[in-house]
Order: sequence, then C-alpha cells, then structure tokens
Amino acid sequence: MKIYVVGIGPGSSEYMTPQARAAIEDSDVVVGYTLYVDLVSDLTSGKEVKSTAMKQEVDRCRMALDSALEGKNVAFVCSGDAGVYGMAGIMAEVAEEHPEVEIVTIPGITAACSGAAVLGAPLIHDFAVISLSDLLTPWEKIEKRLRMAAEADFVVCLYNPKSKKRHDYIDKAADIMHCAKAWDTPCGYVKNIGREGEKAIVCTMADLKDNDDIDMFTTVFIGNSATKVINGKLVTPRGYKNI
Amino acid sequence: MKIYVVGIGPGSSEYMTPQARAAIEDSDVVVGYTLYVDLVSDLTSGKEVKSTAMKQEVDRCRMALDSALEGKNVAFVCSGDAGVYGMAGIMAEVAEEHPEVEIVTIPGITAACSGAAVLGAPLIHDFAVISLSDLLTPWEKIEKRLRMAAEADFVVCLYNPKSKKRHDYIDKAADIMHCAKAWDTPCGYVKNIGREGEKAIVCTMADLKDNDDIDMFTTVFIGNSATKVINGKLVTPRGYKNI
Ligand SMILES: C[S@@+](CC[C@H](N)C(=O)[O-])C[C@H]1O[C@@H](n2cnc3c(N)ncnc32)[C@H](O)[C@@H]1O
Ligand SMILES: C[S@@+](CC[C@H](N)C(=O)[O-])C[C@H]1O[C@@H](n2cnc3c(N)ncnc32)[C@H](O)[C@@H]1O
Repeated sequence: MKIYVVGIGPGSSEYMTPQARAAIEDSDVVVGYTLYVDLVSDLTSGKEVKSTAMKQEVDRCRMALDSALEGKNVAFVCSGDAGVYGMAGIMAEVAEEHPEVEIVTIPGITAACSGAAVLGAPLIHDFAVISLSDLLTPWEKIEKRLRMAAEADFVVCLYNPKSKKRHDYIDKAADIMHCAKAWDTPCGYVKNIGREGEKAIVCTMADLKDNDDIDMFTTVFIGNSATKVINGKLVTPRGYKNI
Repeated sequence: MKIYVVGIGPGSSEYMTPQARAAIEDSDVVVGYTLYVDLVSDLTSGKEVKSTAMKQEVDRCRMALDSALEGKNVAFVCSGDAGVYGMAGIMAEVAEEHPEVEIVTIPGITAACSGAAVLGAPLIHDFAVISLSDLLTPWEKIEKRLRMAAEADFVVCLYNPKSKKRHDYIDKAADIMHCAKAWDTPCGYVKNIGREGEKAIVCTMADLKDNDDIDMFTTVFIGNSATKVINGKLVTPRGYKNI
C-alpha cells in the first residue's frame, strides 16, 4: 500500500537515520540495487528481497509498484538521499496512474554533505550540485550549468564525475569552470564515503585534470573565491564580510 | 581534545544519525543554540551544557575551543547539516592556531533534503542552494547567483528566505529568477520540517510573492523547466531525454 523511497546514506549504518530504519522495518518487500540492499541486510531477514544489479530503473520502480498494488508495503532503497539523483522522482512518475499508492520519501545524508564532512567544511555557503552524467541530460546543458555556477562564484559539488565511457568529463568540467575559477582554487574529492576504502584528498582545480584517482564512486568539490585550506581541511567561510 | 561539529537534522530525533548520537554521547560538553540543545536533551544528562540564545557565533566557537583546550570532548550541535550554513567552517577558522585540537564534522540531513522529501522529489537533478541572508554576503552577489542559477535552469533551494528586517527579499528573488523562470513554474515551501507545526505547500513561483506564510523557519524550492506536480507532489524528472 505504501512505497517508501528510502535514502540510506552513503554507506555504513552509522549514517542511516532511525526514520530510514523504521521504514525498512515497516516494509514487506525491499527493492534496490544489490549493493544497497546488501548494506541493509541486517534489516531484511524475513522480508521479500528484490535486489538486482541491472540498470533498468523504470523496471525496478514497476516491481515496487506491483508489490504495493498487491497490498504490500515496499521499501525502495537508494544510496545517499532518495531525492538527489535518487529514485524518488521516477517512482512518482511510474506510479502516476495509481494515486491510491502512497509514496513516502525518506531523506538520507547525500554525498555532498557526507563528503563535505570528511573534507572539513567546503560547502558552508551557497553551492551548486551538478552531475556530469549525460545519459539523460544533453552535455550542452551541463556545460552551461558549470559555466554559470563558476561565474556566480558558487562552491560546486560534482556527482558522477567519471565513468568508463566518460573518462575526460571531469577534465572538460575543470576547463569550463576555469572561465571564472583560478587553477589554484582549493578543491577536494572523496572516494567511497562511509564505505571500505574511504579516501579524501585536498588539492587544487588543476589537480582534477588527468586524475586517474577520480572514479564513479567519487564526489568532487570545487571551492569558491573564498575557500581555503586550514590545518589540512577544506573550508569555505560563511560570507565575504567581516571575516 | 576533540570538537565534534554535529548536524542533528531538521528536528525530531527520527532524523538524527547514529553517528551524531554517538558523537554527543562521547562528549563532556554540549554547546549550541538553546533550541538545538533542547532537541537533544535526552542525550545531555550528566554533561556540561553551554546553550545560549545569543547571536555571537564566534563566541560560541571560542567557548567550544576553550573546553577542548581543557582536555574535554565537545559536541557543537547545529540544526540540519553542520556544513550547510552551519558552524563547521567558522569552528575551523576560530581554532586555526590550535591544530592539536581535532575538529570532526558529523553530517546531518540538511533542510534541502528533508524539505524535498516532504514535498516529494523536487531536487532529483542539478540544483543550487542559495541563502537570502545578506548579513555576511553583499546582496549584489546573491542577486547574481539567483540570476545565473535561473538562467542555467537549476532547481533552486532557498535558505533564510525571510527575516523581520528582510521581509521582501523572497519577492525580489522571485522577480530576479523571472529572467528565465516562468511565473507558473512549479514551486513549494516547507515550514518547521521535522518539528511541531510542519507544513508543506505546493504552489507556483508567482505565489511566492507577497506571501506572509513564508518565514525564517521555511525552506523554499523553485523548480526547473521540467519540474511538475504529480498527485499533489512536486517532482523533477531526472533528465531531459527519453522521459
Ligand atoms: C546516481 S548518484 C546517487 C547519489 C545519491 N542518491 C546521494 O544522494 O548521494 C551517484 C553518484 O553519487 C556520488 N556518491 C554516492 N555515494 C557515494 C559514496 N559513498 N562515496 C562517494 N561518492 C558517492 C558519486 O559521485 C556517484 O557517482
Ligand atoms: C542558518 S540556516 C541553517 C541550515 C542548517 N544547517 C541545515 O543544514 O539545514 C537556517 C535556514 O535553514 C532552513 N531550515 C533549517 N532548519 C529548518 C527546518 N526544520 N524547517 C524549515 N527550514 C529549515 C531555513 O531556511 C532557515 O532559514
């Protein structure tokens, strides 16, 4: 009857809210990528688990919808937040013809926030979150967002910085943001936040280019004109006055 | 010895991560605004509590630093995420001369994510977070960010949309974003997320003007060109292709 779209945070259960836990406990069926379902395996015993490694996100939403229409409660688990490049939106689209099925979004700690915490405090002030994946968005639109975010001096947080097919997008992104951000702008990236192999690097925007360390499990932060490094941490002051 | 800057989420303990709870439990001293310290009162018994209603954030950071220099562990509690308009940055600045004090940022669910969940799924795709407070940022800079974020078709999430002194800033912000966003752009706002009196409204950008309902405990969402209302929820599709 209810579909919870649940953000479980970046990795270990230390990041998962009691609300997310309760939603999974209240469900008869748990749906999601194998990796995320595995991360909550301590909560799924006795439940029907529909995990899949496949890419077809719409199919997974239909699976969740079918179970709900059978009268079951469903937890659709996503990494990070359910509403940041997560499944909360597409689930609502797939279930549009079934207003009788209640869809409840349960928020989680998104990679921008969990990654920022590992690096120190790079966001603090106004920021823009941009995905470099052009699977569903024309590259020209991504390029415009990168350029305008740089010109308006936002801190920029990049999701999906790389994949096998899009190896040089992070290089292109740095080149575009160079329109208004200096090569020595303090930056950082975090790999496998909250998971085994977590690794945080503080660097400059120049260091983001030709960087083999950055992969699809990495979130990248590009500072604004006031961002600095304090005792090894990446820190953006809250404002520009009186500091 | 350690200062944890802890994001406790928007309100009730349902949103607080086990990591945040553990950090407070590991602390001898708890520092923060009265309201936030009250929200974690079940965790503070037997601890030294330094809550204050005052505005001097630097003073509160110094209080935290002094306790740490006395050899105590300190939890500095913030609402939402500690790194989004939170205290993680200024704490690092105030403690700059004391690298021996370890500062650990503990992320929390920020109002952008908790508010989006209440509305449905307005963020989903690329978004910009902008504060309308000009206490520490020149208004011209805020204006530029609003304009560029609108032109680049970001979903926009506004923090600090209003205060007693800045009553018409949200009106001005809507006028500026009208450069590239239509008046009937689907929007929404959420008051008192996760707290008593939580209230969510789905509306249009025109409805944000002359709106007495929006106050300083409100977070506002302005859709992108693809955002729509599905069964009463505010939803942004994940991309622009194949949908
Ligand atoms: C499809 S998005 C999902 C985002 C997720 N819903 C969230 O709110 O964090 C995948 C991208 O998120 C970022 N990401 C998600 N989890 C991460 C983690 N544990 N460590 C580093 N980056 C992560 C990476 O940039 C990755 O390419
Ligand atoms: C100084 S900022 C603090 C933000 C906080 N660190 C966070 O990550 O959510 C204060 C602004 O955050 C938003 N906000 C914080 N908590 C909220 C809540 N419980 N309900 C609605 N808005 C909230 C409002 O826009 C408010 O004016």
